[in-house]
Amino acid sequence: MLAEAPHIERIIAKDPASLWTSIRPDSSRRLLLAALDAFGTLGFEGATTREIATRAKMSPAAVYVHYGAKIDLLETILEVAHQAAWEAVSEALDGVVGPSRRLRVFAEAFAAWHASNYMLGRVAQYELPALPEGRMEKIAAIRRGFERLVRHELRLGIDEEGFIVPDLDGTALVIVSLGIDLVRWYSPDRRITVEELARLRGELVLRMVRPWGTAAD
Amino acid sequence: MLAEAPHIERIIAKDPASLWTSIRPDSSRRLLLAALDAFGTLGFEGATTREIATRAKMSPAAVYVHYGAKIDLLETILEVAHQAAWEAVSEALDGVVGPSRRLRVFAEAFAAWHASNYMLGRVAQYELPALPEGRMEKIAAIRRGFERLVRHELRLGIDEEGFIVPDLDGTALVIVSLGIDLVRWYSPDRRITVEELARLRGELVLRMVRPWGTAAD
Repeated sequence: MLAEAPHIERIIAKDPASLWTSIRPDSSRRLLLAALDAFGTLGFEGATTREIATRAKMSPAAVYVHYGAKIDLLETILEVAHQAAWEAVSEALDGVVGPSRRLRVFAEAFAAWHASNYMLGRVAQYELPALPEGRMEKIAAIRRGFERLVRHELRLGIDEEGFIVPDLDGTALVIVSLGIDLVRWYSPDRRITVEELARLRGELVLRMVRPWGTAAD
Repeated sequence: MLAEAPHIERIIAKDPASLWTSIRPDSSRRLLLAALDAFGTLGFEGATTREIATRAKMSPAAVYVHYGAKIDLLETILEVAHQAAWEAVSEALDGVVGPSRRLRVFAEAFAAWHASNYMLGRVAQYELPALPEGRMEKIAAIRRGFERLVRHELRLGIDEEGFIVPDLDGTALVIVSLGIDLVRWYSPDRRITVEELARLRGELVLRMVRPWGTAAD
């Protein structure tokens, strides 16, 4: 059996509302949450400003007071989502040493965050192409950061622990995918818990890259 | 190095237009392809009947001659996509013997199909929740079929080849995910080829489940 995983517990226990507390005033936050809900059910293109205003119990004109256009709402939501995922992973990895342990904790934390925040994650992943290139910089940097982190641990693992990685970039993408794909199908109705699916992904990632006979610890 | 993989080549070489030849008359097919294009860029909710008609160079009234409503177009697209993926995988597995070989071929064929048909696959995966429960039966059966197939090979692999699979359902989902998630990010601009990413997934799946020391053949 695996040891306890407080880093997974911490991510699961975090109140989703806390992601939005820095957004002020209250009416801006209410609009963002209404937009998240509308984008999640109707898609970015399908959700009109009127629809978002109605969900926020505000007038369409009020949307433009707080946000210049619908795309500004999407940009803010995407930034909050990526920043939150990055912080969750960084916090989980804080003080963790050694490529195997770090890869496992990455896979667990990344999966736990995406399952716990599946609706926000779904909008962040599926509506990303709606964001114009010029507004992508901050978000693209965080996304590259996740892949760079995984590639770095894979490289260290090859040198220090004999990892077998035939295609470094491709394997890093697969490892990142294992967490992201959860936003497509996970919901709390599922029989599997967030902790179980996080641990399974941590285990499978190690089995993918570690030399035979060393993955059981 | 791996042996040649004619099953991957066959999937890559298949003309995407051939998926639609059974749809008659021509105007029905033209509408379906226009709807696929509109759903792919605007989402199901965001694509109006008018928009679809315009893309098909037809009048909105003509849409209702061929299809009762927008949802009928989506249902047909989803059925074509799932049926085509199922046929591609079945054809690839035809005559392949042994759980390891069959799992590898499944992972390769499933990945190759989803990358080669990423736009159709994206609509099939992302717009699936828009389909009402009552119209889901045929598609849900195919989706369960993929998972059942993988679980079956995993079970045989445990019995016959000593596979290590701590969580059968969860691992089957991960293996299916590896192919599906390609629709989110793959495009022909990517530096990696469809064949390379199919082979990598086949390799990683075997490393996930086979006992140490046996995955090199």
